Amino acid sequence: MASRPLAALSRAQKDAALQGIANALRRRVDEIGVANSQDLDKARESELSAPMVSRLDMGPKQVDATAAGVEFIMGLQDPVGSRGPMQRLGNGLLVGQQRLPLGVIGMIYESRPNVTVDAAALCLKAGNSVVLRGGKEAAHTNALLGQIIGDALHADGLPRDAVQIVPPHDREGTKEMITLTGLIDLIIPRGGEGLIRYVSENARIPVVAHYKGVCHLYLDTGCAHPMAVDLAVNSKAQKPGVCNALECLLVHEDEAAVLLPKLAEALQGAGVELRGCDKTCAVLPKVKAATEDDWGEEFLAMVLAVKVVSDIDAAMAHIVEFGSNHTEVICTESQSRAQRWLREVDASAVMVNASTRFNDGGELGLGAEMGISTSKTHVYGPMGLLGLTSEKWVVLGDGQVRN
Amino acid sequence: MASRPLAALSRAQKDAALQGIANALRRRVDEIGVANSQDLDKARESELSAPMVSRLDMGPKQVDATAAGVEFIMGLQDPVGSRGPMQRLGNGLLVGQQRLPLGVIGMIYESRPNVTVDAAALCLKAGNSVVLRGGKEAAHTNALLGQIIGDALHADGLPRDAVQIVPPHDREGTKEMITLTGLIDLIIPRGGEGLIRYVSENARIPVVAHYKGVCHLYLDTGCAHPMAVDLAVNSKAQKPGVCNALECLLVHEDEAAVLLPKLAEALQGAGVELRGCDKTCAVLPKVKAATEDDWGEEFLAMVLAVKVVSDIDAAMAHIVEFGSNHTEVICTESQSRAQRWLREVDASAVMVNASTRFNDGGELGLGAEMGISTSKTHVYGPMGLLGLTSEKWVVLGDGQVRN
Repeated sequence: MASRPLAALSRAQKDAALQGIANALRRRVDEIGVANSQDLDKARESELSAPMVSRLDMGPKQVDATAAGVEFIMGLQDPVGSRGPMQRLGNGLLVGQQRLPLGVIGMIYESRPNVTVDAAALCLKAGNSVVLRGGKEAAHTNALLGQIIGDALHADGLPRDAVQIVPPHDREGTKEMITLTGLIDLIIPRGGEGLIRYVSENARIPVVAHYKGVCHLYLDTGCAHPMAVDLAVNSKAQKPGVCNALECLLVHEDEAAVLLPKLAEALQGAGVELRGCDKTCAVLPKVKAATEDDWGEEFLAMVLAVKVVSDIDAAMAHIVEFGSNHTEVICTESQSRAQRWLREVDASAVMVNASTRFNDGGELGLGAEMGISTSKTHVYGPMGLLGLTSEKWVVLGDGQVRN
Repeated sequence: MASRPLAALSRAQKDAALQGIANALRRRVDEIGVANSQDLDKARESELSAPMVSRLDMGPKQVDATAAGVEFIMGLQDPVGSRGPMQRLGNGLLVGQQRLPLGVIGMIYESRPNVTVDAAALCLKAGNSVVLRGGKEAAHTNALLGQIIGDALHADGLPRDAVQIVPPHDREGTKEMITLTGLIDLIIPRGGEGLIRYVSENARIPVVAHYKGVCHLYLDTGCAHPMAVDLAVNSKAQKPGVCNALECLLVHEDEAAVLLPKLAEALQGAGVELRGCDKTCAVLPKVKAATEDDWGEEFLAMVLAVKVVSDIDAAMAHIVEFGSNHTEVICTESQSRAQRWLREVDASAVMVNASTRFNDGGELGLGAEMGISTSKTHVYGPMGLLGLTSEKWVVLGDGQVRN
């Protein structure tokens, strides 16, 4: 593994390598198109839905956007070697913490092929090597992207294996990867329940899970109805196929009779299918009844579960049972209930009067991200450059000893 | 498990419970003495060394010091619910991070019985429940301490099982504890190589390892000899049985002829046995020759390995091979080599011209600690109250949606 040499690289060296990768992506756009069409053809032949097929697309537009993403990461500050505040202690020691790379990151994911490039660029910028295992749907595209990145690194005098794309493998292959104690320092599984559970149960390496997003919006008693409607529509419909999209609306029973028809009009107008609890269907008789499976479901589509709840406690209890520690929003005019929500709800992002879609590294000011961690250890929420590093203590003395 | 109720407790409630524990320890000092003498008698009958036996001692003095430690933790600021800087974004959102407890901590350790009380107090203060499994040498003492803590919690209206002392168990029992996915959120193994490796290889839960300390002091070419001698003596002899004590001295070859005799005089005068490499023994013919096993050995005793190295690169290569990512010190007058050391050496604390003994939560300003993490994920170095918490994102809006 190539982690040690990367840790000592200067920002200029790393940025030059990133520019080399961006240039190579643009230069080899036609090759990428050929590899990508193999994946797309296979996807169309299989039973993949149209939105899933379009997620695989790496045409010239996507390649250019991906290269621009690498250049954006170049522009971010290098975290490695930076120090927080240094404190002068009574004995004269100057102490603080200095950032260092984690070492070798392993990522197992099932997403769009641009994630391959984003993750490689972020890991490199933070001084880490990375082993990337994408999904089989994007296998041809990912293999070529790995070759392009490796060639670019090699041309810049960096080790080719600083970024390793391993072919999609079965559970046995995954197990081998997540038990490479001493070779991989952190495993990031990004995907659904089956993947996360398998990795967590079998890894011999620290895991930061990027689990699915079952995000809720609770519309509190006394909330502003126009804001409630805007937040529901934007959270659900602005980009339904992503983990920070809304999957379940919780409506206080005091508001149900008046607010539910407004919500239904706006959401259905935006093309959203609603699935309601009994009380919801009593107000909105044309809405389909939700089944037990709809609570806690990550639809990733224009479908939204709707439940009427008696109060904030019932809303929070529903989230404890069905949430995925991703993003939970309250729409309220009550200061005290807003504070309770922020304090008591356990999710990587807790919000008041904002769209769930803001739980995103770019939106929260981190620049770019590996994904959104739903693990509480190491990093909770968007995992950007800082999440790809650790901090060691630095102690500067002039001969101090302990008494 | 009792983690949820603890997360919502106010600082006043937690501090009242901690005061109750401190009072109960002092009130029941005689009972503790009886239980402790059972452990001490057993230890004396077995082949435990005198220093190991004395580590088990929980006489009136130690009980009072332990109670005072709990009161000290009461005085520390409650991290739960505190927020870092909140940033105002262009769209008017106010975003930042807010601390929350991790949940349920599991700790497996082989240390002094006061660790049982320290760890329980720290976990409670950070809003976590804790499951503590100490060593069999302290079993009677730990069992009683668990009862005293449970009684005190119960008297204060807190769940008794917020602190659970489980009896020392064999590897099968340990395996059961470290695979309680969903019940325990973080496992802290604290001890030697066998324990750490077993836990890392078998846990199904995030692990923050508190591994042994094989700490080095590198005496650079041109270093100040009186300072070098002071640092070596203090790092080794001030408290040799702890993880931040010095185990191996690396001496630049330019300094060896003049510095080694001064070191030998001071260290041997303090009662330290030296074990030298060939070059060391050439300068100090009376010093015992080191065996291969002495490099990387955690003596935890008045024994010190000494090696002559050609330069800083050789010193760092030795540390890569034999260090334990704990504490690594350079004694130097060179600014450029000091900076290289701080940047390139991978250890939880890297120091210039200071005693290894300063890698300690109290000394570095954290107050108290669970131990010293040698894992790079989540926390690296002393694990205090902040290391027992995580941060969730807080987003405050007035109806913002994404475009």
